Amino acid sequence: MENKALLTDLYQLTMGAAYLAEGKNTPATFDLFIRKLPSDWGYFVANGIEDAIDTAVNLKFSEQDIAYLRSQHLFSEDYLDYLRNFKFSGEIRAVKEGTAVGPNTPLVSITAPRIEAQLLETILLNTINFQTLIASKASRVVHAAGDSKVVDFGLRRAHEESAGMKGARAAFIGGAVGTSNVKAGMEYGIPISGTHAHSFIMSFPSELESFRAYARTFPDKPTLLIDTYDTLHGAQNAAIVGKELEAKGHRLGAVRLDSGDLLSLSRHTRNILDASGLSYVKIIASNDLNEYKISELRAQEAPIDAYGVGTELITAKPVAALSGVYKLVEDDQGGKIKLAPGKKTYPGRKQVFRVMSNGQALHDILALENEAVGGTPLLETVVEEGVRLQPRRSLEEIRTYSLASVAALHAYDIHNPEAYHIKVSPGLQDMVEKLTKQYEVAQLVLA
Amino acid sequence: MENKALLTDLYQLTMGAAYLAEGKNTPATFDLFIRKLPSDWGYFVANGIEDAIDTAVNLKFSEQDIAYLRSQHLFSEDYLDYLRNFKFSGEIRAVKEGTAVGPNTPLVSITAPRIEAQLLETILLNTINFQTLIASKASRVVHAAGDSKVVDFGLRRAHEESAGMKGARAAFIGGAVGTSNVKAGMEYGIPISGTHAHSFIMSFPSELESFRAYARTFPDKPTLLIDTYDTLHGAQNAAIVGKELEAKGHRLGAVRLDSGDLLSLSRHTRNILDASGLSYVKIIASNDLNEYKISELRAQEAPIDAYGVGTELITAKPVAALSGVYKLVEDDQGGKIKLAPGKKTYPGRKQVFRVMSNGQALHDILALENEAVGGTPLLETVVEEGVRLQPRRSLEEIRTYSLASVAALHAYDIHNPEAYHIKVSPGLQDMVEKLTKQYEVAQLVLA
Repeated sequence: MENKALLTDLYQLTMGAAYLAEGKNTPATFDLFIRKLPSDWGYFVANGIEDAIDTAVNLKFSEQDIAYLRSQHLFSEDYLDYLRNFKFSGEIRAVKEGTAVGPNTPLVSITAPRIEAQLLETILLNTINFQTLIASKASRVVHAAGDSKVVDFGLRRAHEESAGMKGARAAFIGGAVGTSNVKAGMEYGIPISGTHAHSFIMSFPSELESFRAYARTFPDKPTLLIDTYDTLHGAQNAAIVGKELEAKGHRLGAVRLDSGDLLSLSRHTRNILDASGLSYVKIIASNDLNEYKISELRAQEAPIDAYGVGTELITAKPVAALSGVYKLVEDDQGGKIKLAPGKKTYPGRKQVFRVMSNGQALHDILALENEAVGGTPLLETVVEEGVRLQPRRSLEEIRTYSLASVAALHAYDIHNPEAYHIKVSPGLQDMVEKLTKQYEVAQLVLA
Repeated sequence: MENKALLTDLYQLTMGAAYLAEGKNTPATFDLFIRKLPSDWGYFVANGIEDAIDTAVNLKFSEQDIAYLRSQHLFSEDYLDYLRNFKFSGEIRAVKEGTAVGPNTPLVSITAPRIEAQLLETILLNTINFQTLIASKASRVVHAAGDSKVVDFGLRRAHEESAGMKGARAAFIGGAVGTSNVKAGMEYGIPISGTHAHSFIMSFPSELESFRAYARTFPDKPTLLIDTYDTLHGAQNAAIVGKELEAKGHRLGAVRLDSGDLLSLSRHTRNILDASGLSYVKIIASNDLNEYKISELRAQEAPIDAYGVGTELITAKPVAALSGVYKLVEDDQGGKIKLAPGKKTYPGRKQVFRVMSNGQALHDILALENEAVGGTPLLETVVEEGVRLQPRRSLEEIRTYSLASVAALHAYDIHNPEAYHIKVSPGLQDMVEKLTKQYEVAQLVLA
C-alpha cells in the first residue's frame, strides 16, 4: 500500500511538533462526521471506511519524507525522530462501510495520543468525504432508476485518476451494477461494460457497415450505438444486424441512445425492435443523465433497461464536496464542544444506536458511549492498539450490506426527502448543556 | 511511472478489437478540445498537457492487464497480442502547458494508427479535463485577489488523492503561491504553508497559552489562528505574543481569520495589530472563500494579505467538470465533421494562431494546419513516431509562462467576462461547408 503520511495539511505536522515539545501528546478522541445533508438528500452512504482504516494502521514516514520535512527548516530533530518511528497505536471505532447514516453521525472515531490522531485528519477526510459523496449520489441515482440498471460511465470527467477509481467502487457500493472503467474492473472486481463511440461509426462508409463490423468481432450480445446520424434509422439498422445475428445463432444484446428526446426515442426504438421480433434486445440510455432526469423518464414509463451515468455520478454534481469534518470531542480534560453558529460539535466518546421496527430503521440515537438507550450500536471497534481486528470485507459483502441498509430507511423521495432522523440521548444532551454553561462562563470572563 | 493502460473505458478496447479485425488500424487524427466555457469564465488555462504526453508515450499493457482482459472472454488472442506489444508510434501536437485558450481550441491533437489514438482518449480526458478545470479556476481566484496572495487549502475536500495532488499543482500554475498539501510540496516543489487548527487552541487551558506554546516551537514568523473563541480578543492575544516574540528577537508572521465577517474583522484586527506596533504582521483569511467573495473583500479594501481557499478552489465549485471531448477530425478518407446541435466539431488537421498586438492577445484563429493566416502557432509538435521531442518543462517555467499567457488577455471581469475570441479561418470554413453539404446529401439518401 502506497504511503500517504505526507498527504496531509502542513498544519497537522506543525501542531504535532508543538504538542510534542509541550508534552501534550496525551490521549484524545476525534470524531469524523458530516454536519449537513446536501439539499434534497435524505441520508449518506458512509464510504471510504475500509480505506481509512488501512491508511491509519499503515501510516509511516519514509526517509525521503523525513528528508523533505527537514529541508523545510521548521522541525526539530526530536520531532523528526518521532515521525521516523511513527506507528499508529490507538483505537478506531467506525460504522461499517456502506451504512446509510444521517448528519452529525460519527463515521469514524479515533482515540489515540493526540499527535497520532491529528496526523490522520486530512487523509481520512480526503478519502471519506469523496467516497461517501459518490456512494450517496449513486444511491440516489439507483433509487430513481427503480428496476432499471445504472452503470458508471464517469471516468473521463472524474477529478483525475483516484476519483475515477474510488468513484467507480463507491458507485458500485451505492447500487450501480457496473462501470466502464476497466482498471476499476480489474482492481475491484466490478463488472465492466461498454460498446463503441460515434467515431467508430464514422470510421466506416455507412452505419450499417459499422454495425456489421462490430457484430463480426463481438457476435455474443453486442451493444450498438444508434444515434450517430438518425436514431430511428439507426434502430432499423440495428434490427437488420439483430436478425443477421439470429440467423448465425447469436443474439444482439442492446442498443444505446446517447442524444435527443430519450423518452420518445426509446419508445420508437422499442417498437422498431419489437416489430422485428427483437423484444429481447435491451435499450440503454445515456447523455448527461442524473437522478432527476431518470426519475422523470421512469415516471413516463420510458422503455429503458439501463442508464449510463457519467459526469453527474462521478462528480455528484451539483454537490461539489461533502462538508465532512474531524473534531476533537474529548481529551484528558474531559468532553470538548464547539459552539460557533452552524459549527456545533457533540462532545464526548459516543455511540450511535439504530432503532428498528419490522425491518425498518425508525431513527438513530446519538448517545454517550455507554448509555443504555436501546437500539443497535453502529460504531464497532475495528482497530485496537494500532492493530486491525478484522480483515477488509469484500466489495460484494459491503455492497449487499449497503443496499440492505439503505432499503431499511423509510420511503424516500429524491426531490424532497425527509432527512433520516437523528435523536440526541439524555446523557449527551446533559453533557452538551454542562459544557455550554462552562463555555458561557468562560466567555463572560473573556469579555 | 505507473501504467495507466487500463484506466480507460471498455469501449476503447472493444473498438480497438473491431478495428484490428477489420483492417481499420489506419492513421487518424483526433483533437482534444473543450466546447464551452462555463458560465462567467472568459478563458481556460490549458493544463495536464505534460502528464498527457508522458502517459501517451509510456502506455503499455502488463501481463496482469492482458490476463484480466482475457478473463473477460471478449477478445481474440490476436488482439491481446497486439495489446501486449502496444507502443504509441504516432505524433502529438499540443499547446504549451499553461497556455490561456478559448473554447473549441485543440489542446492536444493526436495523429496515429486509429487504435493507438483511440486507446488514449479516456486517460487524456481524465487528466486534462480536471487539471485544466483547476488551473482555470485558480486563475480566476488569483485574478480576484489582486495583490493579495492565494494559497490552496483544498486537500481534505479534493476528490481523493490524485485530485488533491494534481489540483495543488494546477492551482500553483494558475497563480496560487503555495499549498497546504505537504506531499504536493515534496513531489512538485510547491511552497507549503500552514499553522494550526481550532483543536490546537482547545487543547490548552487558554488561547493565550496555546499561542505562547505555538510560538515557543515556531518562533520564526508563526501564524496564529485567532477566531476560536472571539476574534478580536484573539487578535489582542496575538498582539501580546507578537510583542513577546519581539522581545526575544523574533517576529510574529501572521494571524488567520477563519469565520465571521471577514471585512469588519480584518479591519479591527489590523487596527489592533497596528496599535501594538505590529504593522508587519500579515492577515490571512479563509472560510469557504471563492473568487466572488474575494473580489468583494478587495473592492471594499479589506486589509487581507493572503487568502486560503479550499473546497471551491480544489473542486472548481460550481463547475463540476469541464466538457472536454476527443473527436475524430480526419482519417484516410479525409476530414470528419460532427453536426449534431451543440456538438459541432471542426474537421481536419488544424493549427491555432494567436494574433498579438502590443503584447496583448487580440484573438486566435482556428485554421487548417498549413494555412497562412498570420499570428503565432500555439500547437507545437511534442511527440514524433512515439518519441518525446523535449523533456518535461519545470513547474516554475510552466507557471511563469502561464501567468504571462493569462496576463496577455484583454482586461477581464470575473463576473461578466467577454470570452476570449476565436475566429475561424477561410480554409477551415470552406472545409466545414463542404463536409456539411456532403453530410446533408448523405442525410437525404438516408431519409
